Amino acid sequence: MSMIKPRTLSGFMELLPAKQAQMERMMAILRDTYSLYGFAPLDTPIIEDAQILLAKGGGETEKQIYRFTKGDSDLAMRFDLTVPLAKYVALHYNDLAFPFRRYQIGKVYRGERAQRGRFREFYQADIDIIGDGKLDILNEAEIPSIIYNIFRRFGLTRFQIRVNNRKILNGFYAMLGLSEKSGDIMRTVDKLDKIGADKVKGLLLSECGVSEEAADEILKFIAITGSNGEVIAALEGYAGRNEIFDLGLSELKTVCENLGAFGVPEENFAVDLTIARGLDYYTGTVYETTLLDHPEIGSVCSGGRYDNLAEYYTTQKLPGVGISIGLTRLFYVLDEQNLLNPEMNSCACDALVIPMTQTPAAAIALAQSLRTAGVRAQVYGEQKKFKQKMTYANKLGVPYIVLLGDDEIAENKCSVKDMRTGVQVTVTPEEAAELILADKRKNAECAVILEK
Amino acid sequence: MSMIKPRTLSGFMELLPAKQAQMERMMAILRDTYSLYGFAPLDTPIIEDAQILLAKGGGETEKQIYRFTKGDSDLAMRFDLTVPLAKYVALHYNDLAFPFRRYQIGKVYRGERAQRGRFREFYQADIDIIGDGKLDILNEAEIPSIIYNIFRRFGLTRFQIRVNNRKILNGFYAMLGLSEKSGDIMRTVDKLDKIGADKVKGLLLSECGVSEEAADEILKFIAITGSNGEVIAALEGYAGRNEIFDLGLSELKTVCENLGAFGVPEENFAVDLTIARGLDYYTGTVYETTLLDHPEIGSVCSGGRYDNLAEYYTTQKLPGVGISIGLTRLFYVLDEQNLLNPEMNSCACDALVIPMTQTPAAAIALAQSLRTAGVRAQVYGEQKKFKQKMTYANKLGVPYIVLLGDDEIAENKCSVKDMRTGVQVTVTPEEAAELILADKRKNAECAVILEK
Repeated sequence: MSMIKPRTLSGFMELLPAKQAQMERMMAILRDTYSLYGFAPLDTPIIEDAQILLAKGGGETEKQIYRFTKGDSDLAMRFDLTVPLAKYVALHYNDLAFPFRRYQIGKVYRGERAQRGRFREFYQADIDIIGDGKLDILNEAEIPSIIYNIFRRFGLTRFQIRVNNRKILNGFYAMLGLSEKSGDIMRTVDKLDKIGADKVKGLLLSECGVSEEAADEILKFIAITGSNGEVIAALEGYAGRNEIFDLGLSELKTVCENLGAFGVPEENFAVDLTIARGLDYYTGTVYETTLLDHPEIGSVCSGGRYDNLAEYYTTQKLPGVGISIGLTRLFYVLDEQNLLNPEMNSCACDALVIPMTQTPAAAIALAQSLRTAGVRAQVYGEQKKFKQKMTYANKLGVPYIVLLGDDEIAENKCSVKDMRTGVQVTVTPEEAAELILADKRKNAECAVILEK
Repeated sequence: MSMIKPRTLSGFMELLPAKQAQMERMMAILRDTYSLYGFAPLDTPIIEDAQILLAKGGGETEKQIYRFTKGDSDLAMRFDLTVPLAKYVALHYNDLAFPFRRYQIGKVYRGERAQRGRFREFYQADIDIIGDGKLDILNEAEIPSIIYNIFRRFGLTRFQIRVNNRKILNGFYAMLGLSEKSGDIMRTVDKLDKIGADKVKGLLLSECGVSEEAADEILKFIAITGSNGEVIAALEGYAGRNEIFDLGLSELKTVCENLGAFGVPEENFAVDLTIARGLDYYTGTVYETTLLDHPEIGSVCSGGRYDNLAEYYTTQKLPGVGISIGLTRLFYVLDEQNLLNPEMNSCACDALVIPMTQTPAAAIALAQSLRTAGVRAQVYGEQKKFKQKMTYANKLGVPYIVLLGDDEIAENKCSVKDMRTGVQVTVTPEEAAELILADKRKNAECAVILEK
């Protein structure tokens, strides 16, 4: 038979079991945290009618999309989870209770140019809260709390949720009479971290056509930093000159005021007036999240408030707020930078039960009793030499092996060996389960991301 | 703006939140049960090189596959989880510990003719155990225990795992000198339930070219029924005439002997000599699972032992055993037949916290404390009349609302109302959490599938 060399397409992540276990842990934390805030899990098709996905049309999306025909159908693979959500909410509008809160963790597809760290198939982990006509600012205030809890449970403390409000920016540029240029200005201001204030000013003058005076005003504005209280106090100085600005400031204050009640420490949160996110999509609070020791990674969780989710599919006005985590890229970068915790036990099995008797029935029954107690147990049934069984246990990375011979059976005991320390004890099956579960619980507390 | 009518492609399942919650429960049971037996979760790309997926080539697969080009690449969407597993194991052979145990719950794609209950995108939930060169019969003996635990946790007792061994069939037909016709014969025998013994005999004579005498032997053989002990005793009568038969019988005995140790009651298990499954793929034990009160659904979990997983990609001999659950179709059929338990609370939220005060901070803090205790809590932040808030709670289907007014805050209490009974109590936040969690635990025990 002619063979085909096995390969996985470039741009498609495929993990070995130990890495997959770490990815699964991150997904479990996301599911669990989103659930605690009452978001409902949703699952929409990966393939949709191309017309539906491309309703907005144009731009990079159309070039990158996986689009093909099957029979008479013009099909496409989703390139994000927001467009399918818009379709879902418009389609099932009458069956949903608003505010509608959903989370979705799913694969999306973009045929980007293949390069290291760029994925064509990747997970997004999204939440959105969709209102019917209106949506209270409280929903925007809640988002930092969700982000905070996710990254804490990932094992991090040194991260910062950066927040701004698009109404503040729009109002400010309106005060300067620069509303029409605000898109260009925000794109330029976004480069502040990279190129510094002087060069930003140069670009404002030369490329955005902003006057010297206005440029100075802009630089003064985006230089506002300090504690949340200090930033808000400085912003108060601009109040009363533009309605949109005042509304944005009031929203920002609501977000900041409730941080404490939502359990977000001030050190993990900062108002940052340089953040703008997508230019025509977001209309209120916007979010970015950075790892303080790894600013080079960029924002690991972003989103914001938008005014109309599904305008291409329905006349209903559906404002919302949402965030997205690009999970595949995040995982890839963490792994590249050795930030995934090697101490986390990532074996799919807690205990390998090895029969040392003629027949395996006693070992099987022991494994069943361990499973009933919650231990992930595997019986090693192959007819191999003991040394080979140990080689298997080591390659598997299993924390415990459980040996069951005739002597142990006679005493209703078993021998449990910790493969990391080599320590072996002879205990009852109940004690074995407790010992293994205690270690499993400890491991469940183990951070998946290292802070270093 | 011109609108596009939102729709979901036919053959693609998209569930409303309550149904999705039931689907998620089934997936969680699958993940959890597979994990308890030490299977590692795996996630492979949905898109693969078309050459890889079609290595085996031919047949229905090639017609049904979603295949397309992107740039220079000839791509295809996976149509099952077995071919990607074969590629994975061949590709990562050196990094895996064998026996390699993996589970995968993922979407697969087949462009079948659209009809009710047929899906083009559907979940398969698979496990496989892959050996390197050899794989002990004990692995085959373990599979019924996994199937048993899954369906018990789904809430069922009235199901049966039916088992046969292909070596017994192959050996038996060899005894009759009918090895070359065994494929046709098995296909005919497979119709026994539907058309009865007389018609099967007719077909054996007219279409399979079997002699009268041999046809009688075949009918006598497949008529063997009774307890596992009785069937095995009857099979012993054929022993000693064909090596393959004897090996198959010995394997079947090992499977049956260990059922007790694996915790599978005899009433949920039957040796059934009419089961053959795929004709050229399986080589040892084969499995089917039927719901006793719904035989019309057919097998809901099937699989078997095969000798060579990845022959198209590697010269390594990789025998394995696996089962697959067609989850989307199973869910669809259960729903159609009203077998999904309506008593299961399928709201994504355990408690809706409703602020009754000027500012929401106290309600937010209460919700956070409920979350810390494990309650999935949502704060209702919209500025609506109380009646509208109740309408929302009812439409959401939330089991509890928690009301927090100034009086309650002064006493460090909150009012918890059970939306199903209307009973309202005023308790401390800790008591509220305990009350809600007790109900949540009860619901977690609730069967997802009804037995009726």
